[in-house]
Amino acid sequence: MFDALTPLQAMDDGQFDRAVARLRADLLDAQYSILEQARTPVILLIAGVAGAGRGVVVNTLNEWMDPRHIRTSAFGPRDEAERLRPHMWRFWQALPSRGRTAIVFEAWFSETIRDRVDRRIKRPAFDRTLQSIRRFEHMLAMEDAVVLKFWLHLDADTQRARFKALEKDAATRWRVTPEDWHEHRHHRRLCKVAEKAIRETDDPHAPWHLIDARDTRLCELAVGRIVLRALRVALAGRPARPAPLLLPSMAVAEAPAAPVSEAVGATRPMTKALYQPALEALQGRLNLLLRQPAFDARSLVLVFEGMDAAGKGGAIRRITHALDARFYRVHPVAAPSEHERKYPWLWRFWRDVPRNGRAALFDRSWYGRVLVERVEGFAEPEDWARAYDEINAFEQEWVAHGAVVCKFWLDVSPDEQLKRFNERSRTRFKRFKITQAMRRLFRKSASLRPKISPRKKLLKRS
Amino acid sequence: MFDALTPLQAMDDGQFDRAVARLRADLLDAQYSILEQARTPVILLIAGVAGAGRGVVVNTLNEWMDPRHIRTSAFGPRDEAERLRPHMWRFWQALPSRGRTAIVFEAWFSETIRDRVDRRIKRPAFDRTLQSIRRFEHMLAMEDAVVLKFWLHLDADTQRARFKALEKDAATRWRVTPEDWHEHRHHRRLCKVAEKAIRETDDPHAPWHLIDARDTRLCELAVGRIVLRALRVALAGRPARPAPLLLPSMAVAEAPAAPVSEAVGATRPMTKALYQPALEALQGRLNLLLRQPAFDARSLVLVFEGMDAAGKGGAIRRITHALDARFYRVHPVAAPSEHERKYPWLWRFWRDVPRNGRAALFDRSWYGRVLVERVEGFAEPEDWARAYDEINAFEQEWVAHGAVVCKFWLDVSPDEQLKRFNERSRTRFKRFKITQAMRRLFRKSASLRPKISPRKKLLKRS
Repeated sequence: MFDALTPLQAMDDGQFDRAVARLRADLLDAQYSILEQARTPVILLIAGVAGAGRGVVVNTLNEWMDPRHIRTSAFGPRDEAERLRPHMWRFWQALPSRGRTAIVFEAWFSETIRDRVDRRIKRPAFDRTLQSIRRFEHMLAMEDAVVLKFWLHLDADTQRARFKALEKDAATRWRVTPEDWHEHRHHRRLCKVAEKAIRETDDPHAPWHLIDARDTRLCELAVGRIVLRALRVALAGRPARPAPLLLPSMAVAEAPAAPVSEAVGATRPMTKALYQPALEALQGRLNLLLRQPAFDARSLVLVFEGMDAAGKGGAIRRITHALDARFYRVHPVAAPSEHERKYPWLWRFWRDVPRNGRAALFDRSWYGRVLVERVEGFAEPEDWARAYDEINAFEQEWVAHGAVVCKFWLDVSPDEQLKRFNERSRTRFKRFKITQAMRRLFRKSASLRPKISPRKKLLKRS
Repeated sequence: MFDALTPLQAMDDGQFDRAVARLRADLLDAQYSILEQARTPVILLIAGVAGAGRGVVVNTLNEWMDPRHIRTSAFGPRDEAERLRPHMWRFWQALPSRGRTAIVFEAWFSETIRDRVDRRIKRPAFDRTLQSIRRFEHMLAMEDAVVLKFWLHLDADTQRARFKALEKDAATRWRVTPEDWHEHRHHRRLCKVAEKAIRETDDPHAPWHLIDARDTRLCELAVGRIVLRALRVALAGRPARPAPLLLPSMAVAEAPAAPVSEAVGATRPMTKALYQPALEALQGRLNLLLRQPAFDARSLVLVFEGMDAAGKGGAIRRITHALDARFYRVHPVAAPSEHERKYPWLWRFWRDVPRNGRAALFDRSWYGRVLVERVEGFAEPEDWARAYDEINAFEQEWVAHGAVVCKFWLDVSPDEQLKRFNERSRTRFKRFKITQAMRRLFRKSASLRPKISPRKKLLKRS
């Protein structure tokens, strides 16, 4: 693949300067139009071999476009916060809001490519990462993002010659690091691994562009022109959404979990005299479990969904009462704020992923997309329809990292729910819990029930 | 101080239930009004001795108010991200936006109080932290925040009795930890240290409330009532801004730094033949310096301010060209977004503080408050006037943590500036760099010049 790279067309200085001047003006126009439209996040991924001038290209793009609307992120060795959270967490943090641009240096490819080159990971792990990258980029495209990936290439001879030339001059010697030479020695294997990664992830909605980087100026121009073309296509109209990804399906439980009520016989009412000691004993066991050293490599994610007035708040308080306040956080999930709506649906939940050793309790959750947003018509059918797959991938990422994810659906019968609504209306301080939306949802609750994900545990409360 | 604590007035169950019902309804009303007004951030700090029920009070406030508009943060031992950044960084991250509420558990007091109790820090360090807390809370009050601090207290005998009672029952034994007993053994010293902290930071704009916590229910009610009263005062009208803090003045350079031009003779133009090798040699030295192990305990903050068209962008690119992309970030500073305007002025800059071992380059900066915002009238006089002190405190915090902060003012003569503006107008891709604001500022530039902070290095470029 890399051998067949077409060399860039040479041009003289005058031609080049005129081309750059035109390109810069056009790029700026396109950037401002994208910004004004506030629909399309732009993600430019710059990867490639050492010495190919990736840093120069990143600087140049920042110079040619208006850098106040660009956020550039580079990803080095993981720090503690990144190690203690799922693999993709740090990349979600770098996503731009609609209309803005992110230049991501190396990003989600380099780490896994270099791990594979140095044989720190085996082929199945490498393949799994490529698949989760494909899912991630597919999700971005479904969010109307422009995703462009550039691989700046040098053959081994040119790379060596470039390093040697830099090293000969005392003033530029520092530009060549031991890691550069390490990579050079594995140039052949790097090409093989990168080729596989590129072939597997070269989707029409997130295409790769292989660029001959022997002439840095021409390389910059080529990258800039590709960016411009893509921005113009995005401006010309909303692109067709990409086709669904055909990836090996994720493991999903075959049958819905049996309601807990059936398993533990919770339908029989419990007296307060029995309840309180039983609760305290369970709280104690939970507390001690989370204090065990083994929990340092795990995290706990508790999701509470269910009918309004089913008692989510009370259930959450009974759990947090058992936990050390420094080690958990409750996330009451409301409708997304204006700021949050500028990002993909799952973005705000990725932000709140607990690090290892911590617990996160969600009072309502990402399932809002396929529940209230679907029923109320806040999300387009194609958006809530794809959310099922995205949510599965999302939870799988967390679980693969070591999170224990428990999801609870608290159910009440329509009669009991109506009774509680009326009681709330009578109690002044509970009135805030009754909203117009709730009354609407109550009328629609017949349509809400069948949408319950089969994998949630059913806790029948009345 | 703690001995003279007035016991809370006892009440029977009926009285209590009625009082709570009324309080909850009123608290919710007040919370929604504050939210709607979107002017006042509310910060409730819950501290106190072990076993006093701080966690219960935090849970109860979340139950009594609408938790979807509250963010609760607890601060345990510092993780890596927190250790590698200035002391106050993690507290800035917990601040609520205008209209919302933050409940901060222990927060900025406990860490320093407990460090002092266990003699991990000496008295001068303790005093310095208290002073920086006072500055922080003063800043919050100037931003119209409601700041309420609660110390929930138990005397040593009650504390011991409470621990013993919990330990006697197998179901509740887990609630008493070794740290609780450790604190109990130092109860007397804790009281002494806490008393000093409370006395020193009991400002009218951020008052302490000492609560007798022997009866948890009464304690909750007392806290709730104080919160309600403060919210109502805030709703009644914008409070008088607090008086300036009279704190020991911070070290500020006496005289303005001499313009670099005078020191290095940069006024004489340099030929390109001399310039390029000199630049590369300096870039190399910078690169190698930042690769030294000693830099792991430092960070580098470069601030570029100056007249429009003075060449900030070019200067920044010449520096980043010397750096490893994974270890620096450029922050082009535009006007604050709507989201950022909901927080104190310096909030977005605290967010971008580099961790140790990293560099941050600011293309324009927090000085915008006392430059463009002042000249253009975007900030009220009292707001830009206090920014000088806040900026000094802010930079001092970063430097105390080990940051190397260099600030550059790039100057051009009005003639040269006009020449560059005209050149930009003629070049299509440079036109975006000329805004209406720039033209206005150009006309006002006589008034802008004398506002230059005396501590910035002057780099005369023409």
